[in-house]
Amino acid sequence: MANFDPATVLSHLSVEEKVRLLCGKDAWTLHGLPAESVPEIVMTDGPHGVRLTAAATLNDDTHPATVFPVEAAMAATWNPELIKEVAAAIGRECQALGVGVILGPGLNGKRSPLGGRNFEYFSEDPYLTGVMASAYVQGVQSEGVGACIKHFVGNEQETRRFQINTQVDERTLQEIYLAPFARAIREASPWTVMGAYNSVNGEFACQNSDVLQRLLRDELGFDGLVMSDWSAVQDKTLAHANGLDLEMPGPALRDHELLNAVQSGQLDEASLDQRVLRVLKLIRQVTDARKAVTVDWDAHHELAVRAAADSMVLLKHEQELLPLAKADSIALIGQFATEPRFQGGGSSHMKPKQMSTVLDALSARGSVSYAAGYTETEVSSAQLTEAVETARQADRVVLLTGTTDSMESEGFDRADMKLAPDHVRLIQAVAAVNPNLVVVLHSGSALDTRDIEDICPVLLQAWLPGQGGGEALARVLQGETNPGGKLSETFPLRLEHNPTYETFPGNKTDTTYHEGLFVGYRYYDSKVLPVQYPFGHGLSYTRFELSDLRVEQSGQQPPVALEVTLKNTGARAGSEVVQVYIQDAQSTYRRPEQELKGLARVHLEPGAEQRVRIALDDQAFAYYVTHLGRFAVESGRFELRAGFSSRDIRLTASVDVNSDTEVRILPTMEDPVNEWLADSRTEPAMTQVLADLGFDEDHPMWAIVMGFPIPQLLKFIPWMGHDEATAERVRQQLADRRNAAG
Amino acid sequence: MANFDPATVLSHLSVEEKVRLLCGKDAWTLHGLPAESVPEIVMTDGPHGVRLTAAATLNDDTHPATVFPVEAAMAATWNPELIKEVAAAIGRECQALGVGVILGPGLNGKRSPLGGRNFEYFSEDPYLTGVMASAYVQGVQSEGVGACIKHFVGNEQETRRFQINTQVDERTLQEIYLAPFARAIREASPWTVMGAYNSVNGEFACQNSDVLQRLLRDELGFDGLVMSDWSAVQDKTLAHANGLDLEMPGPALRDHELLNAVQSGQLDEASLDQRVLRVLKLIRQVTDARKAVTVDWDAHHELAVRAAADSMVLLKHEQELLPLAKADSIALIGQFATEPRFQGGGSSHMKPKQMSTVLDALSARGSVSYAAGYTETEVSSAQLTEAVETARQADRVVLLTGTTDSMESEGFDRADMKLAPDHVRLIQAVAAVNPNLVVVLHSGSALDTRDIEDICPVLLQAWLPGQGGGEALARVLQGETNPGGKLSETFPLRLEHNPTYETFPGNKTDTTYHEGLFVGYRYYDSKVLPVQYPFGHGLSYTRFELSDLRVEQSGQQPPVALEVTLKNTGARAGSEVVQVYIQDAQSTYRRPEQELKGLARVHLEPGAEQRVRIALDDQAFAYYVTHLGRFAVESGRFELRAGFSSRDIRLTASVDVNSDTEVRILPTMEDPVNEWLADSRTEPAMTQVLADLGFDEDHPMWAIVMGFPIPQLLKFIPWMGHDEATAERVRQQLADRRNAAG
Repeated sequence: MANFDPATVLSHLSVEEKVRLLCGKDAWTLHGLPAESVPEIVMTDGPHGVRLTAAATLNDDTHPATVFPVEAAMAATWNPELIKEVAAAIGRECQALGVGVILGPGLNGKRSPLGGRNFEYFSEDPYLTGVMASAYVQGVQSEGVGACIKHFVGNEQETRRFQINTQVDERTLQEIYLAPFARAIREASPWTVMGAYNSVNGEFACQNSDVLQRLLRDELGFDGLVMSDWSAVQDKTLAHANGLDLEMPGPALRDHELLNAVQSGQLDEASLDQRVLRVLKLIRQVTDARKAVTVDWDAHHELAVRAAADSMVLLKHEQELLPLAKADSIALIGQFATEPRFQGGGSSHMKPKQMSTVLDALSARGSVSYAAGYTETEVSSAQLTEAVETARQADRVVLLTGTTDSMESEGFDRADMKLAPDHVRLIQAVAAVNPNLVVVLHSGSALDTRDIEDICPVLLQAWLPGQGGGEALARVLQGETNPGGKLSETFPLRLEHNPTYETFPGNKTDTTYHEGLFVGYRYYDSKVLPVQYPFGHGLSYTRFELSDLRVEQSGQQPPVALEVTLKNTGARAGSEVVQVYIQDAQSTYRRPEQELKGLARVHLEPGAEQRVRIALDDQAFAYYVTHLGRFAVESGRFELRAGFSSRDIRLTASVDVNSDTEVRILPTMEDPVNEWLADSRTEPAMTQVLADLGFDEDHPMWAIVMGFPIPQLLKFIPWMGHDEATAERVRQQLADRRNAAG
Repeated sequence: MANFDPATVLSHLSVEEKVRLLCGKDAWTLHGLPAESVPEIVMTDGPHGVRLTAAATLNDDTHPATVFPVEAAMAATWNPELIKEVAAAIGRECQALGVGVILGPGLNGKRSPLGGRNFEYFSEDPYLTGVMASAYVQGVQSEGVGACIKHFVGNEQETRRFQINTQVDERTLQEIYLAPFARAIREASPWTVMGAYNSVNGEFACQNSDVLQRLLRDELGFDGLVMSDWSAVQDKTLAHANGLDLEMPGPALRDHELLNAVQSGQLDEASLDQRVLRVLKLIRQVTDARKAVTVDWDAHHELAVRAAADSMVLLKHEQELLPLAKADSIALIGQFATEPRFQGGGSSHMKPKQMSTVLDALSARGSVSYAAGYTETEVSSAQLTEAVETARQADRVVLLTGTTDSMESEGFDRADMKLAPDHVRLIQAVAAVNPNLVVVLHSGSALDTRDIEDICPVLLQAWLPGQGGGEALARVLQGETNPGGKLSETFPLRLEHNPTYETFPGNKTDTTYHEGLFVGYRYYDSKVLPVQYPFGHGLSYTRFELSDLRVEQSGQQPPVALEVTLKNTGARAGSEVVQVYIQDAQSTYRRPEQELKGLARVHLEPGAEQRVRIALDDQAFAYYVTHLGRFAVESGRFELRAGFSSRDIRLTASVDVNSDTEVRILPTMEDPVNEWLADSRTEPAMTQVLADLGFDEDHPMWAIVMGFPIPQLLKFIPWMGHDEATAERVRQQLADRRNAAG
């Protein structure tokens, strides 16, 4: 327990001491103040495990800790309770290692499957991301360790990430990119937020008052500490003036700049005090929550296995090849079987406490012959021959493929969505001798599987599954765990179909979010494009049915509750995710075809059924109305869709919602005739005026005049054969009736 | 012949007289100056014929004249020589009617199939549009009548056209929307240009100096007269200050504003003089070219028939249903057979000099039974019954459908791409009793044909074909003319696939061209989307083959000549269009998958072949490089593709082109390490530095450091274990080597 009072400490400090607190002591440590009993605290990278470096530097020599599945995999569990459990385990490991704040989770979006850090982010859907982020933050913080939601905001690419300016319109920012942060802050109160490297609409995120003050503080109501991403601060004075509390990493090189700014009055000392107070409060919060924890590493490993198993997505399952029979002889092919592809490169790269390989895990269960098949992305002719021979002699083949560190990592964006050409060649050769082929895909983001679809009866997306991946894979392949993971992102048919294909990752200065709201399935479904595997998709060894959709609504306002019966109609226990999408059939401003608004992962024994209830609150119906500057629900009919993926909707129902908010802008005296006619509030006045003028659809100029703004209409009245006085009378009449309507 | 000298007249004028000349006298007439022997001249709407109103007002009581096919149909002939002939005929009719300037052609683009005025524009492709526009302007002006290319610029929608702000980036503006104007000005020197209603990047086009001065005058080199669209002038003073010569229509209401501006010095009188001089020069040009012309109306009608026949596109032809046999009994169904759908609504709406209906034209050739089938968009049950009975008793059915005036017109954008639901119902009922069904589509823009594809063995796109449409249709159906038209725009599989689907027609203030260069087939082909009928597509009653592609190039610079042999391998005479697309395989800045750069429509007897030569000049290889502010050819390999549509490429060849222009920006001292490594000019220096630092791919921070901008790299050097002096030495070394490379 710390025994200092932040406000009291603050009152004792010189400006120099204050400034010193606003930057790290080293790469990971915050300055303490021994004289004031303020201890140092330590932060580490995350997010899928504690990454405590041995020395306080930016190296890769880290303390071993449990490596859980990457965030993309976590989201594929569609199981926030499980992720909360995982995060709590991470929190306990932080406590055990003396870490006060873990730098995660990452809440950025997935505009492009090429985003180099997609594996570290949850989902293309802001609702799923928000739900998972909240669970993660709650889990970590339940153990007295601070979470850090990042990277705030608009950091959806690695290319030129230190310099790029993200150009994004307000509605898109609010609905797609801010929404997960909003939910996490609302539901889980993270202790810290990390500002992004990039600029947002013209100013670096870490010195952007619109981002840090208006959005984060004023609108999202965040009251914790805001730190910079590592080396993201460009103009230290501006950063602290505009909302940044803490620059990272240390040691500080620019304290003098800040001192000068305070001394010259450029930076208000009161505002400086506010920043310092937040740093002191965080230290107090961390030290208050410090506790002695003994980690049960085996239990954490088992949790890592369970999370990995629950994240795996059975993309395709033909010929009932799975689960493998115990008696089958299995050919296991791929270097990843002995050198697991279990995490991504960059700041999240950890040293695992334990490691299970799928070769060991499968060998423990039966007869397995192994061939490496490849070294990284390359297949030698000896490897090819060995793999083919191994495959030929087995009943079934399990072949592991996916991205390597050179293909997918923090620091750069992927070049394409393809497998390594040599891997494809290997798969083709193996399939030719043994069609009983199960291909396991390890990647942190969508892959283009077209090259192997025709020859692979089974595809299992195993992500970057952490240290328990090998064991998890064995359980899934053997049917000890029935796969129930669901895609947290669309696998498009081809990269070209992605909405950002034409422009990603932008030019030398800007990356423009020209696709707006139409990201992921919001795009593919609105554009009615075929996809390889839709958002939310995932098969099972059993079958599920949905029935008896009922909607409960008291009055015509949200909340609305939706109930369905989920039944396991197959022969095995398993889990399914009931997904609820909403379609706003009548919105004034265009919305995507459908949006995910509710989910429930349910485990059922064979033949069992369960009534599943999903509540849809106000937020589920709302969208961001730019001219109102806030989210609003618009009156009208909504379709509720319940199903097993965005393309597998089983049941629908309509609800009518009434709202007090008027989102339509009343036509003005500058607006065109047809807009007056299209709005029920101004239609009677315009209809009357046109009738009085004797102007109707038979007039040759009708279609043209419909597009006339009112001033143009007034000018046209003399052409109709009326006098100037009539024009003035019409103007007055329209203005009066409009004012009455407004 | 006029006998005034514009400069001399100008010197005689008072400011009031000058100002007076800058606005029309009435809706169509320019002021004359009797005392100076300056006559009045008359302008009329176009573009597919002269539309001279009886009185000088905006009404629809017009002198009859020949109605040629609308521009979309003209472009579908892919035959600039024919369009020149058509335009010359229009020019002669202008002379005969005393019209000095015709307000056409329209050169705007087709972002969306919903654009209400698409029928009045040529094509989604700027090259095809430019070629057709040049031919049109040359044709009209060869008869001593001025053309007016319009609407300059960014006027790609009808919705809020008087107010909307077109947001478009410079490269897109240059390559897609300005390019047709540039070609027409370069090749055909139109006498006038019409400014658009809309704003362009924040300022109304008619008062936008960036549009009128920089783009039109300085870059495109236009030296004729610039007039406003009718009622497009918002701020008269600003308009004339920023490049507008003539406000239309008259009578003037705001001369006093301009007078005040001149008197107060807000508007320079010298600049006013320049505008007046242009008006006087135009009047002089028109009057000098005035001549007595006797129109051979029958010959013009025959030309209209020929143009219509050559514009028709045989989209689909199964079961060899066409040509109709003379002996066949034909059921002709559809109100359009007696009340032709031959032109669009709005300012181009004409009174035809003659009119052929397809009922008359087919009846003149054989046994035809007729049923109206529908009235406008509606089918009564009596009409349905009659149509079905009529169809049942015939050998073959010809059914006419398409858009009505209420679905497609100037003044509003289309609601969708569908046929009227009742028409679909009619087609289904008819197909059920007689599968020998030829459906003729009348529309000015792409239709969604999915509802009828399965039941229609033949689809013929007949556009809005002008007064000769009925006779043309009979000739095509009977095989007297072998159809050879080609789509001037893609028929996408569905509206949702259009690149503007999500946002068209923008919001209350702006329409953002977020799709950039990716318009029409540039989008569909780059995105590898299936389409219903591709750009350039069109079938024939005969077959063609392409062979022996040869590329001629002297040195490695353009021009490049491409030669192919086109052979008619079928049994009938007919024409085919050789289309040449270019793919820039190695461009620094992303280009669309392919771009049309050459075309030749060739008529061949059965068994005949012809060597076709298409020259590709500098412009064919160039693209707009924004940071250079001009078009440039980039060195590299290009693929030349010759074929019969954008999706029917028959032959390809590669050419290497050398250019003196360097379009790559030399990496700066602010740019990231990986960009230094990716550029051959800076790669050696960076490789050397990294080697000297002992920093290589095995380092755990490698991928991250690759993305570091140089200043970040320098800060990181101490973390690598080197001293500050090393960092400074590295900085100096990189800076020196870069300066040497630049």
